[in-house]
Amino acid sequence: MEYFDKLETQDPEQREREMFAALPRQIAHAKANAPHYSRLLADIDPESIVDRAALAKVPLTRKSELHALQRTAPPFGGLLAGKRLPVKVFVSPGPVYDPEGATEDYWRAARALFAAGFRPGDLVQNCFSYHLTPGGSMMENGLIALGCSVIPGGVGQTEMQVATMADLKPVGYTGTPSFLKAILERAVDLKRELTIKKALVSGEAFLPAVREALKARGIEAFQTYATADLGVIAYETAAREGMMVDEGVIVEIVRPGTGEPVAPGEVGEVVVTTFNRDYPLIRFATGDLSATLPGRSPCGRTNLRIKGWMGRADQTTKVRGMFVHPHQIAEVTRRFEAIRRVRVLVENADGNDRMRVLCELVNGGTDALREEIEGAVREVTKLRGDVEFVATQTLPNDGKVIEDVRKFS
Amino acid sequence: MEYFDKLETQDPEQREREMFAALPRQIAHAKANAPHYSRLLADIDPESIVDRAALAKVPLTRKSELHALQRTAPPFGGLLAGKRLPVKVFVSPGPVYDPEGATEDYWRAARALFAAGFRPGDLVQNCFSYHLTPGGSMMENGLIALGCSVIPGGVGQTEMQVATMADLKPVGYTGTPSFLKAILERAVDLKRELTIKKALVSGEAFLPAVREALKARGIEAFQTYATADLGVIAYETAAREGMMVDEGVIVEIVRPGTGEPVAPGEVGEVVVTTFNRDYPLIRFATGDLSATLPGRSPCGRTNLRIKGWMGRADQTTKVRGMFVHPHQIAEVTRRFEAIRRVRVLVENADGNDRMRVLCELVNGGTDALREEIEGAVREVTKLRGDVEFVATQTLPNDGKVIEDVRKFS
Repeated sequence: MEYFDKLETQDPEQREREMFAALPRQIAHAKANAPHYSRLLADIDPESIVDRAALAKVPLTRKSELHALQRTAPPFGGLLAGKRLPVKVFVSPGPVYDPEGATEDYWRAARALFAAGFRPGDLVQNCFSYHLTPGGSMMENGLIALGCSVIPGGVGQTEMQVATMADLKPVGYTGTPSFLKAILERAVDLKRELTIKKALVSGEAFLPAVREALKARGIEAFQTYATADLGVIAYETAAREGMMVDEGVIVEIVRPGTGEPVAPGEVGEVVVTTFNRDYPLIRFATGDLSATLPGRSPCGRTNLRIKGWMGRADQTTKVRGMFVHPHQIAEVTRRFEAIRRVRVLVENADGNDRMRVLCELVNGGTDALREEIEGAVREVTKLRGDVEFVATQTLPNDGKVIEDVRKFS
Repeated sequence: MEYFDKLETQDPEQREREMFAALPRQIAHAKANAPHYSRLLADIDPESIVDRAALAKVPLTRKSELHALQRTAPPFGGLLAGKRLPVKVFVSPGPVYDPEGATEDYWRAARALFAAGFRPGDLVQNCFSYHLTPGGSMMENGLIALGCSVIPGGVGQTEMQVATMADLKPVGYTGTPSFLKAILERAVDLKRELTIKKALVSGEAFLPAVREALKARGIEAFQTYATADLGVIAYETAAREGMMVDEGVIVEIVRPGTGEPVAPGEVGEVVVTTFNRDYPLIRFATGDLSATLPGRSPCGRTNLRIKGWMGRADQTTKVRGMFVHPHQIAEVTRRFEAIRRVRVLVENADGNDRMRVLCELVNGGTDALREEIEGAVREVTKLRGDVEFVATQTLPNDGKVIEDVRKFS
């Protein structure tokens, strides 16, 4: 087994100690230099954030807020802590503007590339877009840091991608899995022989069937989980068991709508803290769902593992014209120690919206408790919800707090 | 007046001395490390190439040959002299593959950007394509070297380019002039205010009418002459008199089809020698036409100036099914000291191809001389050509050796 560096195989307790030893300084840096954090973390003493329990008390910054924050304080919503302008600025949907700083491998892609088998001297065709979105630059920086040579392919121009691959004989591909599939199929049409043997894919679901189809053509493809703000969060390894968390971030899984960590293995929202000095993201709620995997990876890496991307956490929906947010349901739950777990079902069987509030209780329930909870629901959401008690372990472990099962056609 | 560095205003004789003092080492480097030059320059003693007259004896490497050279010795035709693989590889029409090395501002774009008014701290939307072609990377590297921040816009997505510019308020634009025009027009449709004040444009003709239209919107746009192999060759300055040759190259203007420098001011093919250690281009014939400008620029820069791009030099054509190359016409000319200048006109007035060979002579001509020249034309081109003597200064100064005036419809 080869590793990118010694961090990957260190004692997990040592990793945890070192990360939380470094964290107070990072939080102090963010508070001192980024106006958003000066405000948000006003009551937080950085020196006190020395373990996961303490971190769990730090307020979240939500990806879904970034657009509004950036509108209020352009261009970066007061989250930039660097003294200088970023080297590059990208656009992701929202629009949200994403800075890239001057540090080598700013997006921490080299480690994921290494785990996917990329090595110094490899020639790689990078088919993420370089235009406006950061994908192309993210992967290119990582490839260059790793010592690879890059053909900046970008997206589209499938025929020219094929011709370039056939002529230059790159061994590696980075991009979406579907575009790799399109390139391979066009190469067959054009009767051109390709030499791709390894791939790091991202940006969309990577289904086992696609992975097997690539394998059948001699291509070992691995996926990485990365976002336009954070860069690489986790990456697949040869063990093919979930995804290994990157060494440069702290990942928590929380109950959607809250900042509270879920029990190990439970599905929740991915919350990430980086050590990026230019653009520190402290408890950044991605809006993505995932869950931790128990145990240790057979690949020898010792970091926390998560399942892949399991959907979007933001389940805000409109019921009878009123928004219902996951954090409102969390607020209702918080008021009752008797409640273990809640799931709201939004239905419209008879054409009218109906909100069912399914509760798993710690012990048995009473009619009085049911009425109290219904009162709390009305108070918090301004909507009527029918509370039902369900047996323990009945509600699915999929991170959903609000499930919209209405049919509109 | 501000300058990028002291090189720009140095005594021209000193520049010439220093460039030619450095040239033997560069030629020796190319001969020693790049197989193409080991072969091509086998008979050239690098130490002897100490001035323009000596350089004029060095064999050309033609851009038009690159594709074939690269097919024979992939991927770079034996022109690469670096010990390591290039950091990036691009594709230009042919296809020809263009390496980018690891040096900062590899394509020497920062100087041209500075002359166009770009300064450290400027936020710039870079609308050259990053995908497969080197334009985006060329400009981005120069901008970053200069200390600017880059929005990697790329091409297309005009509406998102407008929205991004309106939100982020970049002061600078790099890209084609026509795409800037399209962005400005779309901004009017979308009622978005843009803040672009400076632009460096390239990649297509930049007509005075477009320049004036941009100026009317408060944008000072300058052009640069750059190619996918050489990077920046020349750039406009505030003087608006032709284009200043870059400090990192030696530019010659030669008679198309030959390596012989033309008289000052005469139109010919642009031949460039770089000091690039990774990918040395020694007497690289671009296939582009231009001419030197006499005198000194009012902007204070002291380097040679050339007119902008004046068309393509490659006038190879097919006459009665046979290729006629400019170098064949040059060969005919070379045989007769009596000839000052030749221009071949290819006509088909009666539906049959006819080749007229117009000659300016040093002195008066005789029937015997005409027959001798016609014999040489037949011998060299395997085609009959009718030789006509014309008065001195009759042939236009447009770099054309073969002019095809046939009508095919």
